[in-house]
Amino acid sequence: MRFTSEQRLDNGVLEREFTLGEIPGTLWTPGSTPAPLILMAHNNGLPKNEPRLVARARHCASQGYAVATIDAAGCGDRPRSAADDSARAELRRAMRAGEPVDDIFESFVAPMVESAVPEWRTALDAVLALPGIHGPVGYSGWTALGIRLAVTEPRIAAAAFFAGGYVPLAQREEARRVTVPLLFLLQWDDEGNPRQRALDLFDAFGSAEKTMHANTGGHVGTPWFEAEDKGRFYDRHLK
Amino acid sequence: MRFTSEQRLDNGVLEREFTLGEIPGTLWTPGSTPAPLILMAHNNGLPKNEPRLVARARHCASQGYAVATIDAAGCGDRPRSAADDSARAELRRAMRAGEPVDDIFESFVAPMVESAVPEWRTALDAVLALPGIHGPVGYSGWTALGIRLAVTEPRIAAAAFFAGGYVPLAQREEARRVTVPLLFLLQWDDEGNPRQRALDLFDAFGSAEKTMHANTGGHVGTPWFEAEDKGRFYDRHLK
Repeated sequence: MRFTSEQRLDNGVLEREFTLGEIPGTLWTPGSTPAPLILMAHNNGLPKNEPRLVARARHCASQGYAVATIDAAGCGDRPRSAADDSARAELRRAMRAGEPVDDIFESFVAPMVESAVPEWRTALDAVLALPGIHGPVGYSGWTALGIRLAVTEPRIAAAAFFAGGYVPLAQREEARRVTVPLLFLLQWDDEGNPRQRALDLFDAFGSAEKTMHANTGGHVGTPWFEAEDKGRFYDRHLK
Repeated sequence: MRFTSEQRLDNGVLEREFTLGEIPGTLWTPGSTPAPLILMAHNNGLPKNEPRLVARARHCASQGYAVATIDAAGCGDRPRSAADDSARAELRRAMRAGEPVDDIFESFVAPMVESAVPEWRTALDAVLALPGIHGPVGYSGWTALGIRLAVTEPRIAAAAFFAGGYVPLAQREEARRVTVPLLFLLQWDDEGNPRQRALDLFDAFGSAEKTMHANTGGHVGTPWFEAEDKGRFYDRHLK
């Protein structure tokens, strides 16, 4: 793990860019240590430095958490195959046209989840080896990856998932094996995530403690108070 | 309004029983005034002194709110007609047997909502006339009554509804006219409230800001942290 830049933010959080082999990542650490760790994952080709994601990570770190994110294969600035690019374009076109997207989605996103898992585990190992950062570990964000990590990675102790309308078949089937406490965040009018599928997924999770927060509005309309609610969810399970 | 008893609780809250004509009620006031008011309503024949309800009212008052509740006609110790008693018994029998209950429910609960509304408004007038208690007013609890109050009573500024699987037709139709900020609390495995109907009701509300919190468990299994979440919802809108 090699740190390539760092800056101290006004709220006392240290923000560092790093690389792990070819994996680029960002680590936010609070002024106080030891801090429990939260993995903040994003999908859909968003870069890890997308302003909404960065703002959430900084807020979360200011509440006493170490927060780590990476651009897994196919995300952010990572190289993409021409096949990925065309599948992505076809997915967007089909969604806009209101056509069924399951087959495109499955062929495109299922392999992306498979290749992201080992990279996130590598990052988890590396970050937990740093001084002042410890488990239990929380997870936040990309639902499909989070399901796979929650059922295969015993260090994950609590998970907050976002959206979840489109999730590859393998993860829909794994959902019942998720047993960690869950916070499932749903935008009721999410233009890209069928509501009923998200509700079915919430129903399928095996966790004894699972909570859904649903709010009016589209995919990017999550109200600010949900960031605070998520913080309290982690506080209950990680502190 | 005549106070019939009072006690000061360990958390500084003053708990007073009162009567308003034939309406019995309880008022909890915090140590600090002026305090915004929350109407905490219950349905289904529960008495206002049911321990779960009292515990929530005391908690809410300790957070700086005045909390008022009454036993509206047909609730708690209020006289009931023989017809009410037999409808109630028939409703329980049909629910246990898994039979359709809409007709029984409608014939029994719709008039109960109608008769409760003027009594709650009388209580609201009386409590707001006391020194140190002021609007805006929050509402908590019984969904059907809350819908009717929210669309007819401009002093209600925010409402938290519980359950909502069975709501009389008149209130299901009024739901789209509710425009105050809403927190809709759903027990995912509520044995007495069909989940899909509750989801449909949440969808129908006209409020620009509406949030649903759904948790695993049956009707009385709401986790303790929801009381705190509800407090923060009121803090955003009433303080």
